[in-house]
Amino acid sequence: MNISFVDIIDYVGTFAFATSGIRLASKKNFDLFGALIVGFVTAVGGGTLRDIMLGKNPFWFNQSSYIIITIFALLFFVLFHKYISKIGTTLFLFDTIGIGLFTVVGFHKTIECGFSLWVATLMAMFTGAAGGVIRDILLNEVPLIFRRDIYALACWFGGLVYLIGIKLNVPELITQIACATTVITIRICAVTYHWRMFVLRGHPRPAIAK
Amino acid sequence: MNISFVDIIDYVGTFAFATSGIRLASKKNFDLFGALIVGFVTAVGGGTLRDIMLGKNPFWFNQSSYIIITIFALLFFVLFHKYISKIGTTLFLFDTIGIGLFTVVGFHKTIECGFSLWVATLMAMFTGAAGGVIRDILLNEVPLIFRRDIYALACWFGGLVYLIGIKLNVPELITQIACATTVITIRICAVTYHWRMFVLRGHPRPAIAK
Amino acid sequence: MNISFVDIIDYVGTFAFATSGIRLASKKNFDLFGALIVGFVTAVGGGTLRDIMLGKNPFWFNQSSYIIITIFALLFFVLFHKYISKIGTTLFLFDTIGIGLFTVVGFHKTIECGFSLWVATLMAMFTGAAGGVIRDILLNEVPLIFRRDIYALACWFGGLVYLIGIKLNVPELITQIACATTVITIRICAVTYHWRMFVLRGHPRPAIAK
Repeated sequence: MNISFVDIIDYVGTFAFATSGIRLASKKNFDLFGALIVGFVTAVGGGTLRDIMLGKNPFWFNQSSYIIITIFALLFFVLFHKYISKIGTTLFLFDTIGIGLFTVVGFHKTIECGFSLWVATLMAMFTGAAGGVIRDILLNEVPLIFRRDIYALACWFGGLVYLIGIKLNVPELITQIACATTVITIRICAVTYHWRMFVLRGHPRPAIAK
Repeated sequence: MNISFVDIIDYVGTFAFATSGIRLASKKNFDLFGALIVGFVTAVGGGTLRDIMLGKNPFWFNQSSYIIITIFALLFFVLFHKYISKIGTTLFLFDTIGIGLFTVVGFHKTIECGFSLWVATLMAMFTGAAGGVIRDILLNEVPLIFRRDIYALACWFGGLVYLIGIKLNVPELITQIACATTVITIRICAVTYHWRMFVLRGHPRPAIAK
Repeated sequence: MNISFVDIIDYVGTFAFATSGIRLASKKNFDLFGALIVGFVTAVGGGTLRDIMLGKNPFWFNQSSYIIITIFALLFFVLFHKYISKIGTTLFLFDTIGIGLFTVVGFHKTIECGFSLWVATLMAMFTGAAGGVIRDILLNEVPLIFRRDIYALACWFGGLVYLIGIKLNVPELITQIACATTVITIRICAVTYHWRMFVLRGHPRPAIAK
């Protein structure tokens, strides 16, 4: 097996996404297998939706690593759930690095399929953000990302950076690093400084609340 | 750019659908970007589901107008949300014209793909009705169309008219106009005269309540 | 028309699934047409999701029997809903036989498309379990199968039996019967003896809770 640096980031992101699904499932008293499914869907849901819209089979059909990582995340949670709130920051970093990468993969795959750049920015956003939305739907919650922090917008900005990089003929690797860095930086700033978008309906809050 | 009459109706319907998503998102205190996503998904969700089931790429991949109209609908809402309840009737008409057209497009696309006429009637219904269902799922509400007014049924009747038109070899344009007119008429009557379906479970209400 | 034994089981399972959707829809005061849609989606949702992920058109595009059975289930419910709790055991058996068959079909179709055996075990599970999840999402409930009884796990075990049968070169028909029997047996035992999975978050219950 030949594991590249990108693979490692992918796995780390998958682990963080799966853990977020399992963690929320545990708060709803899901059983072990239910939590496993929610974790898996959270981790691969965004990419699956992207692949279906692109007319491809889901990416995890060709690689068992994603389900294995989800099982590993479940075991990890069962063993260490008492300490998991203590490593919240680490998990947040994993998650953030994950969506940075997922955004890059989403953009890259879409233009590879021959679609236009603006479609790719939307697909980049979907890949990064849809997993969390599907998770919240399965848990019967209003999707968090529509209300808190800058999340989908960070993914979309990353896609925009990718688009600009291509338009300016920047080498693809540099474009990809810039894209991921944009997503990660916006996410970290948004959480650290409590950045919010304006909330609709007569209660506009300043972009930087605090 | 060459915009036909059908395009204009399509855009008007998209605007109305997007606005309905944005409006409900604002009641749940979604942020600006969350509302944009919900608006977009409401507008294109039904057609996207149809295209995926037909084995095609989503229709909005080839045309940026749908996302642009959604952004426009968001701006419109932000600027004029105080007056939006006053133009409720106008929005209802837009919405109704929209689902009339969406039903026609859903039927036409399905038979174009070579599927049978009864599949086309179902797809016509899905195209018109699924966007609202996806919107309500994202907002964590019980889908409205399952409980109030004649909605999906209107779309299905429109599909039936299309089917009959084809069986009788009526020219396609006339069939399409008849289909859209059926949907629009049923919708307007249903809302004006408070038509309801029988509600299940021992509390049957007359088809025309009041 | 040429109806095989498998078709009959398929129709019986579809009837049971549709009835479960209609029954729950009636508790939420859905109207007649809303209940019909929920019943249909419950019956065909899992298989549709499977077919989309496999890159195929939904199986019910080629056969009108599924929508006809759903309409029949709705009529049955409207006429006999007062007695439906009395035939709960019969419906449970129908449902159980149904998911046994759906699991077999899900596995078979996936390997037919050339995907690996572990993907087939997941697809077998999705085919059996996803319909109920989609139903609960439409009804705005936390999906039941994540919290109660052994359900998705039974489907997955059935898939595992299928996989082992193939690895050992057992004739396919015997493998399929063994797969369905596994699912059905686990489901019946789970419900009869109140088998539960461990619930997450510090409240582990014994696998057999009395």
